[in-house]
Amino acid sequence: MSKKERLIFLPLGGAGEIGMNAYVYGWGAPGKERLILVDLGVTFPDMDTTPGVNLIMPDISWLADNADRLEAIFITHAHEDHVGAIGRLYSRLKVPVYARPFTAWHAKRKMEEAGQNPDAVQVVSPYPEVVEAGPFTVSFLPLSHSIPESSGLVIDTPVGRLIHTGDFKLDETPVLGDVFDESLWREIAREGVHALICDSTNVFTDKPGRTEASIGPELVELVKGARHMVVATTFASNVARLEQLARAGVAAGRQVCLLGRAMQRMVLAAGECGLLSDFPKTIPVEDARDVARADLMLIVTGSQGERRAASAQLSRGKYNGLELAEGDMFLFSSKTIPGNERGVARIMNAYSEMGVDVIAENDRYHVSGHANRPDLLRVHEILNPDMVIPMHGEHRHLREHAKLARDHGRAAMVVVNGAVCDMTGKVPHVVEHVEAERVYLDGSVLIGALDGVVRDRIRLALNGHVMINLILEGNEPLGEPWVEIMGLPETGASRAPLVEVLEEDLGQFLGRAGRKTLADDAKLEEELRNQARRTAQEEIGRKPEVTVIISRLE
Amino acid sequence: MSKKERLIFLPLGGAGEIGMNAYVYGWGAPGKERLILVDLGVTFPDMDTTPGVNLIMPDISWLADNADRLEAIFITHAHEDHVGAIGRLYSRLKVPVYARPFTAWHAKRKMEEAGQNPDAVQVVSPYPEVVEAGPFTVSFLPLSHSIPESSGLVIDTPVGRLIHTGDFKLDETPVLGDVFDESLWREIAREGVHALICDSTNVFTDKPGRTEASIGPELVELVKGARHMVVATTFASNVARLEQLARAGVAAGRQVCLLGRAMQRMVLAAGECGLLSDFPKTIPVEDARDVARADLMLIVTGSQGERRAASAQLSRGKYNGLELAEGDMFLFSSKTIPGNERGVARIMNAYSEMGVDVIAENDRYHVSGHANRPDLLRVHEILNPDMVIPMHGEHRHLREHAKLARDHGRAAMVVVNGAVCDMTGKVPHVVEHVEAERVYLDGSVLIGALDGVVRDRIRLALNGHVMINLILEGNEPLGEPWVEIMGLPETGASRAPLVEVLEEDLGQFLGRAGRKTLADDAKLEEELRNQARRTAQEEIGRKPEVTVIISRLE
Repeated sequence: MSKKERLIFLPLGGAGEIGMNAYVYGWGAPGKERLILVDLGVTFPDMDTTPGVNLIMPDISWLADNADRLEAIFITHAHEDHVGAIGRLYSRLKVPVYARPFTAWHAKRKMEEAGQNPDAVQVVSPYPEVVEAGPFTVSFLPLSHSIPESSGLVIDTPVGRLIHTGDFKLDETPVLGDVFDESLWREIAREGVHALICDSTNVFTDKPGRTEASIGPELVELVKGARHMVVATTFASNVARLEQLARAGVAAGRQVCLLGRAMQRMVLAAGECGLLSDFPKTIPVEDARDVARADLMLIVTGSQGERRAASAQLSRGKYNGLELAEGDMFLFSSKTIPGNERGVARIMNAYSEMGVDVIAENDRYHVSGHANRPDLLRVHEILNPDMVIPMHGEHRHLREHAKLARDHGRAAMVVVNGAVCDMTGKVPHVVEHVEAERVYLDGSVLIGALDGVVRDRIRLALNGHVMINLILEGNEPLGEPWVEIMGLPETGASRAPLVEVLEEDLGQFLGRAGRKTLADDAKLEEELRNQARRTAQEEIGRKPEVTVIISRLE
Repeated sequence: MSKKERLIFLPLGGAGEIGMNAYVYGWGAPGKERLILVDLGVTFPDMDTTPGVNLIMPDISWLADNADRLEAIFITHAHEDHVGAIGRLYSRLKVPVYARPFTAWHAKRKMEEAGQNPDAVQVVSPYPEVVEAGPFTVSFLPLSHSIPESSGLVIDTPVGRLIHTGDFKLDETPVLGDVFDESLWREIAREGVHALICDSTNVFTDKPGRTEASIGPELVELVKGARHMVVATTFASNVARLEQLARAGVAAGRQVCLLGRAMQRMVLAAGECGLLSDFPKTIPVEDARDVARADLMLIVTGSQGERRAASAQLSRGKYNGLELAEGDMFLFSSKTIPGNERGVARIMNAYSEMGVDVIAENDRYHVSGHANRPDLLRVHEILNPDMVIPMHGEHRHLREHAKLARDHGRAAMVVVNGAVCDMTGKVPHVVEHVEAERVYLDGSVLIGALDGVVRDRIRLALNGHVMINLILEGNEPLGEPWVEIMGLPETGASRAPLVEVLEEDLGQFLGRAGRKTLADDAKLEEELRNQARRTAQEEIGRKPEVTVIISRLE
């Protein structure tokens, strides 16, 4: 391996998925690079692959093993998939964390909640202010996105400037927060951009993105046209949207109330960071109960159908003393994230049963926070980088984005989680791979994705559970084996209780079993398990999970 | 209750969901109506709500209890959500089943597979041929849909004509199968339509539906432009699409091979029913292996990401000796049904990793099989019914469809599963409710949705399982309790094995437990469970499911 210094890029999360972003940059001799980390996010579990899991985080073992080489952590914005793991994983990294005020507000709280020192998070101002971090000089580039103070990073390295976009769109009228400022981008790119590491989320969307401001008049018209109560939901962190929704309510002569913890926390943060100068007055929920329904507008959490959020609670009945009724309007000012369709439909149908008019999946009342395909091309052109490294996407998004760049004559490479990309020269290439799996927060414990714990839970869910309890005295069974079942039908083909059929068959097996089997716990366990599975297959047509407990009396 | 005769409509499935269609019509004195059943379908389980379940069917207990009043069953088309339960549930109904040839082909096989007599299925010709069924005269009205020989039903009753659409679209050039024939519809409606019971699937889609024929040229262009192997997937039952895909392959000079059992079965059925006169020649998979990749086109099952279908198998590597490679093209000539997004994305990303170009969610290569909102209005106008009863939809679809009808001056009513709707007069009204839950095929056993079996499996998946085994002699514990765990982390807060911490805490509890507790199985079990849950909460931050097995030696 060469001793020459090199520039590396290593995603530990976010490259091959939309979620748990964590990107490492390094500069130095191979294996001795000084490192920085950009973002440390979570992703959310689902019943199909991760039942019972609370949160999914990148496995940062490689980075923790090299923590002595890590200079700093930079957080681009306060979405959970960028900041969500900072508290839980910080103790393994222990370097300064840099973020702009609104993002820092959230990062500090994550640290506090995890028992870490929030003062490790340092508040910085945007470009041209810089942070020196070993061989890197880093500056926060204000961007528009669906949360306040989202930032790209301008990372100056010994071989040139990198632009790491974070999540962004091109919005010159974003209502609240940072405006897309093309002249600033051109200024930053003037002396050349070595590499653009770029958001890929919307690469398959062919039309240019729309501005947040475009939906304001639509929202006003919609709310003005409503006769009864109006309830709207959006992502809690989309403070610009909250402001537009609240303005629409006020424009329609309504009192506006924000409902749901996540939303109140976001508005609190935005207020403390001085971002809410134009935010309309809202009323507390206690007062909302006394407002005539036709004069009230609620803005609530739960645009993705989350079971505990306000939208879901309201779809099941009274929540905080408020209740929807026939003729009310419920607006999803949001897009359903793939995978959440069933949960969202459940709420929509519950409202439908109440006689509530639901408005959903309507482009008039929602715009995306990510740059679309033509916007990505525009950014490539403005920054004119030597190479494009797509990030923030499933593999198909990354591949398409790289193709788009190459089709326009730029070097590009798909770099997936765990791949170490050498981008010292003009053309990127992957030089090695490190372990970059996932860890699960499972209750209060961190477990590896490959530990088998969750796999066992999935098996229990698919197959049910048979428990066999056998007591032996010497090598003689003491009575029949005792069987319990969970998650299995009580009766099967023979119409007798499944438990009794199992006990009968297992008892007969024991009657036939030789001394050698009875004396050998492992063998006995295996044969009892096999017999139970055979019997279950005959009786109920499935082979359950089987736990055998053998007790030997002395 | 009036003794006057009445016309009733009672959905047992399909009204409040997209799936497991089963609609009852009746005529007669209240409680003595003679009945017919239209369709008897299944719906598919998911991990969120029905892990481990094989199929979901309507609970037809009410109908089975009144089977002596049932005259006949009519199957509108061969989609699983219309015909899938006929075999499994037939033994409780035992009346003639009527269907057109292609549908009957499938219904007969369902009967055979369930050990029922396939001759109970009688093949009928379409309108004007009629079937007399008690007070009803029923005729099959040819429609276009995404499967051959889909039919509406013209049901003549003592109070007038009903049109039950089944699933349909308005397609005058459907490539294969029945053309939408407006003049026939007008003829049927000439003497008045009492009620239109109508497909609601696409009521939220504002544009008129597009014809199947419109995508043929697009497919040809796409396949002609491909340089390497082409693989396309669609719904196996969409024989018109299979024909168009195969034609595109042939037009591009390729050999075409159908891959996947469901697809071969559909084509076999279509062939035996004489529907394939224009279907291009295909080659068996054994021959496909010898064809140069650039000269081959595969048409495969698995458009919804089903794990065992050909598309998923190919995304994991070799399947039937065939394999995709860099530069190949994979076309989803289909739409992802809500809820299947994750499975489809998994396949798309696997192909992306192989370097295969995936084309998906593109209207150029797919049209829906259901009537859109303007098409529904057009049908309302052509048939001019006294009332519209929406079916085949979630609640929000039914409600929107009823609203659409009412907005245009027609009586309409949302009638959900289990609601008995009296539609004798000009205005429908719900007069009673019967039990209309779901039953699950679970392995080989039918269980009720409310039996708790599946609920227990979900709990196991979310919470994991602790098993406690305790042996007592008299009222004295014989040694420590023995604990096994499944689906739980091996260690928690104290860093000691969870099993040992549980055994320790449970042992201490037993040391403290009074004679009264030790003598009382129920009490002892409850307290052991509570202690185990407390310990687990402290150690791993979750409360698992707990099974306690107490053995008492005499």
